[in-house]
Amino acid sequence: MSENISVLGLGLMGAALARTLLAAGHHVTVWNRSPEKAAPLVAQGAMSAPTPAAAVEASPLVIACVLDYPAVEEVLAQAPLAGRVIANLTTGRPAEARETAARVAGRGGDYLDGGVMAVPQMIATPGALILYSGSRSAYDRYEQALGVLARPRYVGEDPGLAPLLDLAMLTGMYGQIAGFLEAVALVRSVKYPLTEFTSELLVPWLNAMAASQPRMATAIEAGDHRTEVSNLEVNRSGMENLVRAFEDEGVPLDLLLPMKAIIDRRVARGLGHEGLSGLAEELL
Amino acid sequence: MSENISVLGLGLMGAALARTLLAAGHHVTVWNRSPEKAAPLVAQGAMSAPTPAAAVEASPLVIACVLDYPAVEEVLAQAPLAGRVIANLTTGRPAEARETAARVAGRGGDYLDGGVMAVPQMIATPGALILYSGSRSAYDRYEQALGVLARPRYVGEDPGLAPLLDLAMLTGMYGQIAGFLEAVALVRSVKYPLTEFTSELLVPWLNAMAASQPRMATAIEAGDHRTEVSNLEVNRSGMENLVRAFEDEGVPLDLLLPMKAIIDRRVARGLGHEGLSGLAEELL
Repeated sequence: MSENISVLGLGLMGAALARTLLAAGHHVTVWNRSPEKAAPLVAQGAMSAPTPAAAVEASPLVIACVLDYPAVEEVLAQAPLAGRVIANLTTGRPAEARETAARVAGRGGDYLDGGVMAVPQMIATPGALILYSGSRSAYDRYEQALGVLARPRYVGEDPGLAPLLDLAMLTGMYGQIAGFLEAVALVRSVKYPLTEFTSELLVPWLNAMAASQPRMATAIEAGDHRTEVSNLEVNRSGMENLVRAFEDEGVPLDLLLPMKAIIDRRVARGLGHEGLSGLAEELL
Repeated sequence: MSENISVLGLGLMGAALARTLLAAGHHVTVWNRSPEKAAPLVAQGAMSAPTPAAAVEASPLVIACVLDYPAVEEVLAQAPLAGRVIANLTTGRPAEARETAARVAGRGGDYLDGGVMAVPQMIATPGALILYSGSRSAYDRYEQALGVLARPRYVGEDPGLAPLLDLAMLTGMYGQIAGFLEAVALVRSVKYPLTEFTSELLVPWLNAMAASQPRMATAIEAGDHRTEVSNLEVNRSGMENLVRAFEDEGVPLDLLLPMKAIIDRRVARGLGHEGLSGLAEELL
């Protein structure tokens, strides 16, 4: 079904979204602060609106993808929101999403917050995912249209949920990258091909280890940290070994020292018999 | 081909190794400090030796799997090493492996160091991997026999390589776990099912992100940190967002603060246009 959809903000991501919607046959209206960014999209069939209010007026579904939440509030300030769905795909924090949702609702609009798990180059490719939270009815109404951008997944009524789960996934990624950087630093201290280490040893190992995370999550949900594999005492001594090896080879282990500290702290509480999942209790 | 193989040390791992070798039809001699641990293996067909020297004497291939490298040195102290292959699968540091290799070679033995990427329960299952470094000829001679324990992989003549790569893989795992723990802490601040988040969102995402690590490794090897996706400036502001979101939700971000610090440091050097691979240069 062909929909009328407006896109506010034509940075790399906004432009990719608008392009994809046009390609899928939707009637797309665009607005950007510096209007020259609209030109290539107009050439592909978009309408260019002179103000954000005019762009909002043009469509019942408005996708916002601007710098940050204050910018969202600013572009929506003069716009007629009543009866419209605002899908905010701008990157932000859960608290901001909740505030913006409340203000949109106060003006008679329906609000969806989106967490885009993709860089602009990945939009409309199979690996891309967008998490949505907020108005269930708005999501159900536009699931199909939004589905052309990336695999959509509705995560709940709390508008903060999509950005929160988005940030949680990024958090996991930053930890994984920290481990990668330290692993690489150690391997660089000897003559061993780094790309071979990474693709043939590290990545398959990380994938195998990631497969044990759902089990850890279940243990955390249940508060049951018993283990039959490596308990925290074993990990404490493994971590000590790691620290000494990095010292031997003259490589800083800065990125993992808080991980060592939290294991030491848990063992010092007399909980060395627990599995790694027990560490979650130290981060409440 | 049936081989004569001795196993020194019958902890959980040593016992699993001995059991697997017996099941594969090898002639296995075992020794353990407290001899009662040998009994179940004798019942499965092993010979139990009264001293480590007698166990070494019994076989041309000796697998050591004891507490640590000082314990390896101790059990080998009185043993006739000349003409024998010592495969040391004890957990230790690269520097220790190099020292032990030199001492074994000084007494006429051939040395292999092994990094066991498995817990005892995984021995002889498809996911298990053992890295070997040291004498190439010793590895070639016994590759098949060792192959029943776990997929074997020879990584080079430097005896320190197997433990170093083993530790580097563990390093990567600890970073991944740190990210998991922080992600979970954030998700626990809202009502969202943790196991669902982990298995349906986090793990597929981490696997997709790990797939970009070989590219980062190639960039690091080449010293070419240009990027067309998220540069360090984008990551710096993403990380800032993360820190504020964790503050909003009242969750400590302790485990990732050094990762934030290293991104900030690199950007402060004026290298915000680089990709994440550039961070490797901060860990030399």
